[in-house]
Amino acid sequence: MTITMYDLAGAEAERRFSPFCWRIKMALAHKGLAVETVPWRFTEKDKLPKPNAGRVPVIVDGDRVVHDSTAIADYLEEHYPDRPSLFGGASGRALTRFAQNWTETVLQTSLIRLVVLDIHRHCAPQDQDYFRRSREERLGATLEDVVRDREARLPAFRASLDALRRTVERQDFVSGTAPAYADYVVFGAFQWARAISDFNVLASGDPIGAWRGRMLDLFDGLARGAPAYGN
Amino acid sequence: MTITMYDLAGAEAERRFSPFCWRIKMALAHKGLAVETVPWRFTEKDKLPKPNAGRVPVIVDGDRVVHDSTAIADYLEEHYPDRPSLFGGASGRALTRFAQNWTETVLQTSLIRLVVLDIHRHCAPQDQDYFRRSREERLGATLEDVVRDREARLPAFRASLDALRRTVERQDFVSGTAPAYADYVVFGAFQWARAISDFNVLASGDPIGAWRGRMLDLFDGLARGAPAYGN
Repeated sequence: MTITMYDLAGAEAERRFSPFCWRIKMALAHKGLAVETVPWRFTEKDKLPKPNAGRVPVIVDGDRVVHDSTAIADYLEEHYPDRPSLFGGASGRALTRFAQNWTETVLQTSLIRLVVLDIHRHCAPQDQDYFRRSREERLGATLEDVVRDREARLPAFRASLDALRRTVERQDFVSGTAPAYADYVVFGAFQWARAISDFNVLASGDPIGAWRGRMLDLFDGLARGAPAYGN
Repeated sequence: MTITMYDLAGAEAERRFSPFCWRIKMALAHKGLAVETVPWRFTEKDKLPKPNAGRVPVIVDGDRVVHDSTAIADYLEEHYPDRPSLFGGASGRALTRFAQNWTETVLQTSLIRLVVLDIHRHCAPQDQDYFRRSREERLGATLEDVVRDREARLPAFRASLDALRRTVERQDFVSGTAPAYADYVVFGAFQWARAISDFNVLASGDPIGAWRGRMLDLFDGLARGAPAYGN
């Protein structure tokens, strides 16, 4: 049975840029599960199936509704145990959490300060006011001020990725010889950026770029084929 | 048969402070393997069994000599497969590398800038010139200058630990419900600091401090019983 997933969309319905949704689209492909996505906008809180927390992803699998990317990944692992594992066991799951916490506290918090104005530019018209207001409040500055010195912040941003860089220099994927959920979590952040911004967050020749290329190739180019910039 | 391990010692032979050696002492205890440590000083390059890279840990297990903490952990996992696993499988091992790379590029590189003068103070007299010269060259400043503003750098240092903090807030250990090598790698850095410095690198009430307490309790208080400051 096809799973339905509510997926954040921009002004163009096919431009999907939520890092959390990308985690789950990659995880569904990893499990070999068919999915039909429903484009959803920030302000369409009442269009989500219940229960939800007003955010995506939300999936509907038969009569089950599951929300929150971490809960969805756990649900998929538990309910489809015969499909390829997302974690590789209990230790793998626990250590994936560390990679996820790094992604959320280091990678995503820096990336948003590089591309937040580009996100605004790609938002559906009905979302733009909401997006600007909520993000300006969270970031404590206008979107224009947040990104104004982004070129100057690039070297520090790139240096902050050393742990990831060293890892994918020495093994093909964060999860080892094959990709798994930790890779999808980290990749979701980069796919988010490239879906809505032509700003080159990585220097050319960065080993992280080579790993991102391997991720873009997965599942017959699932992410590579999605509307995004070339970076 | 008892394994012999060359272990970095200070002016007091029992003060053992190498973060890399602590990883392996914890890993040996995890595997339930008996170890006899040999105190070793930075300048005793010619006292190490061959092959070596002029650094510790080096272990001697029967007729095998293994050096480099990562190689030793892999050796122990491979040669003692019936003992508790250090990684929990291939994914766990790969993801442990990410935690290790984070420890080496974020945690240890910041910690040394907080406690390097305290290390010098605890070095054996014959090591002090070597230590000062090599570290001042690496850090690009006198040891005194490196630590001069350490109080001012504490908030940024503590903030840089958010990924670890969030992880051990939500699960007992980095590796999940039980400790494994990823925990020993991260812990090695904190044990290094507390072995040679009374500087409180963590704020009181930090969840990382609670996790460190759980680590200090392991293996009948192996690390808690070693010469160190109370922090």
